[in-house]
Amino acid sequence: MEPYELSLSDAAAAIAATELSPVELTDSVLGRIEAVEGDLNAFVTVTADLARASAAAAAEEIAHGGHRGPLHGIPIALKDLYDTAGVLTTSSSAVRATYVPERDSAVAERFAAAGAVLVGKTHTHEFAYGATTPTTRNPWDTTRVPGGSSGGSGAAVAAGECMVGMGSDTGGSIRIPASVCGVVGLKPTYGRVSRRGVASLSWSLDHVGPLTRTVRDAALTLNALAGYDRADPGSVDRPVPDFTALIGRDLTGMRVGVPTTYFTERLQDDVRASVAASVARLEALGATLVEVEVPMASQMAAVEWGLMLPEASAYHQEALRATPELFTAETRGLLDIGELVLATDYIKAQRVRGLVQAAWAEMFTSIDVLAAPTLTCTATLAGQDAVTWPDGSTESPTGTYVRFSQPANVTGLPSITVPTGVDAGGLPIGMQIVGRPFEEDVVIGVAAAYEADSGLGGQLAPLRRELATA
Amino acid sequence: MEPYELSLSDAAAAIAATELSPVELTDSVLGRIEAVEGDLNAFVTVTADLARASAAAAAEEIAHGGHRGPLHGIPIALKDLYDTAGVLTTSSSAVRATYVPERDSAVAERFAAAGAVLVGKTHTHEFAYGATTPTTRNPWDTTRVPGGSSGGSGAAVAAGECMVGMGSDTGGSIRIPASVCGVVGLKPTYGRVSRRGVASLSWSLDHVGPLTRTVRDAALTLNALAGYDRADPGSVDRPVPDFTALIGRDLTGMRVGVPTTYFTERLQDDVRASVAASVARLEALGATLVEVEVPMASQMAAVEWGLMLPEASAYHQEALRATPELFTAETRGLLDIGELVLATDYIKAQRVRGLVQAAWAEMFTSIDVLAAPTLTCTATLAGQDAVTWPDGSTESPTGTYVRFSQPANVTGLPSITVPTGVDAGGLPIGMQIVGRPFEEDVVIGVAAAYEADSGLGGQLAPLRRELATA
Repeated sequence: MEPYELSLSDAAAAIAATELSPVELTDSVLGRIEAVEGDLNAFVTVTADLARASAAAAAEEIAHGGHRGPLHGIPIALKDLYDTAGVLTTSSSAVRATYVPERDSAVAERFAAAGAVLVGKTHTHEFAYGATTPTTRNPWDTTRVPGGSSGGSGAAVAAGECMVGMGSDTGGSIRIPASVCGVVGLKPTYGRVSRRGVASLSWSLDHVGPLTRTVRDAALTLNALAGYDRADPGSVDRPVPDFTALIGRDLTGMRVGVPTTYFTERLQDDVRASVAASVARLEALGATLVEVEVPMASQMAAVEWGLMLPEASAYHQEALRATPELFTAETRGLLDIGELVLATDYIKAQRVRGLVQAAWAEMFTSIDVLAAPTLTCTATLAGQDAVTWPDGSTESPTGTYVRFSQPANVTGLPSITVPTGVDAGGLPIGMQIVGRPFEEDVVIGVAAAYEADSGLGGQLAPLRRELATA
Repeated sequence: MEPYELSLSDAAAAIAATELSPVELTDSVLGRIEAVEGDLNAFVTVTADLARASAAAAAEEIAHGGHRGPLHGIPIALKDLYDTAGVLTTSSSAVRATYVPERDSAVAERFAAAGAVLVGKTHTHEFAYGATTPTTRNPWDTTRVPGGSSGGSGAAVAAGECMVGMGSDTGGSIRIPASVCGVVGLKPTYGRVSRRGVASLSWSLDHVGPLTRTVRDAALTLNALAGYDRADPGSVDRPVPDFTALIGRDLTGMRVGVPTTYFTERLQDDVRASVAASVARLEALGATLVEVEVPMASQMAAVEWGLMLPEASAYHQEALRATPELFTAETRGLLDIGELVLATDYIKAQRVRGLVQAAWAEMFTSIDVLAAPTLTCTATLAGQDAVTWPDGSTESPTGTYVRFSQPANVTGLPSITVPTGVDAGGLPIGMQIVGRPFEEDVVIGVAAAYEADSGLGGQLAPLRRELATA
């Protein structure tokens, strides 16, 4: 096994035991990037020199007894929305083609403090405004999309190009690429991790969080990143627990909500079957299944888009007026629409959101977590315009991908996606575990129990099709 | 001394000692209402029969050892925005001329639980959208306005028609009538008291709170009303202290911020002098004065109106379309303007608000409270269109009244106003003490120390002019 194939947890244990050097690990990861980037294009920028210098510094520090913790010497990648001091930060947009921040984002600062090694900046759907990431391909099948908007991080983590890829999630943009790339994606509670220095799509819906190859890796990353930051107006001042604390517990007494609506409509049969089988495993592991109707499900899309459209347009307004031609036509079209929304409609979306949150809080009095398919379908083909359902209805790939993920954005609740297997075509399927506010430890515990039982933790993508013949 | 002249605290002590019966007290207050309402018109509805029944029930309960606490048997009034089960609730608008709620507002429920006696519903500027209360007159001079929008509660408390008058405060609507009517007004921190069942003006700026004749009375009322309520989306789940705890402490070590900007511009000389003398008293009482520049002062009005205009229009949208003729021209005009605001502008107002809050939080690292004039001027004449300043500029009465009060709405910080004396014409002046989030106990403590020193606690309005000759 090459070092790049290790999970974060295993690599961290090897580093702590001085069986593996951060330099050796980083070289292995950089070699992997060189081998597969031609097929995936997950990265906007690979910071190879910086990474080697960081790895050498980590090795030196650890050799002198200064081991900082599980992220010390671990290769990580940041979505290119995250400001990185002195490193190009494009948001995969021509608008920021030459933007080099002077200061790190809060997340980049925390990774640096933990001793992590930044290997590069990953591609996003332009400014995170979409769920396919047109620049990048899926390592399970390079004719297909890696999902999005954090598609670069999804592909990179799945292919072994880094051990953590950070994403951002406004309607599902961490969990979508995690699910279609067969890895773990964790969207924390709204306000749990600071977004200071991360380009905003929709500030009232934006969350930042990790994509990793195991549930424990996500928990270790959240341990390093969580905490109050006055510089993020959405940040919440809450105690930060050890997010690994419930890993390894069995599920006795855990009430798992199983939706009888919304998450049961218009989804691929393979996805439905895989997630149903996985939910049955949760019961076998000791959980009590509780059927629940999803409250106010019909309002999800209206609230999501009613908030996101004008918030995105407010954020990009100056650039849209100064250099509209630098946006892609797709993004510019969405920004133009957001300019037309009336404040009264936006306010009504906020009010309905409050009702949705109250209704979900009520649902969560009878359950501890909700288990549901992360997405309606597996990875679509690059360039595919629409998904067609048996009833004849169609959806855009972005539209269908966000349908099951956006409730956790509208509610702000923590949600983690874990792989549950593959469809008939060999493409990954994911199940999301949604929990109460600030109960990331609980969703992590349930996801870890499932992962341990399934044996699907830590998998790398098989790099099929073009890659297989390269 | 007639019972209606007592402060809440003194009446409560007399009731607890069985020296005063709630029936006798309520009869005295109802008699006072009968005597002065012809001149003041503070009430939309006087609930005399209900009040007598409540008082009798309280007397019975207390006689059998069931004394519930300081509000038991105390006559109180609610602004007519507060839903009261079975009692007309008009918001002083023809739109709700016949509206009788089925359920109490959260505040009405809490008063009922505390055993308070509702004597009536007080006038507001229509739907709280203005700061003068055209229906009602000021008991210090009945040719003048009582301020607003809680002008009915201000006049009623000052004239002895109730011991607590509840207000709501979106840009100053508790503190404005309190200041111009010579009583105490407490706007708690945003989220401290539930607004469930209170007609909304601007949900992100609305606060509810009491007007009383002493600082202790305000603290005792807040003790009964404060606490988390999931039914109010703005409610905050924070521990509720005893708000009287710091009353009686001296001010040694208290750092009082004295503004060198914003609150020093375009105000009446008598107001400036009275508040300066009062601030000097705080120093004599042990406080340390710290000069502060008010951060982001130029943004206050833009944020206040940028949020309030569209939020009010969203709240009233159905009624405005169904029965526009039932609104006054003034309110309808403001609601029409709010319909035109774009979501992007509203969102930018929210973002600037966040910056203002952060800047004020920074200011409050060097001070414990801020002391400033509550208003630029004393009570204007009924029908007066404008206030003219020496530099030739003019403001509407509402515009000038909110100028010094709205910062505590934009920031959400607790603010209490206390009387500091009268101007050359004998009209009351007020000083506000603003504190950190959820530090109502601190602003109450400072206000109480000032009040004890000034000897101005518990005063009734002199009922001058028409009333004096009645």
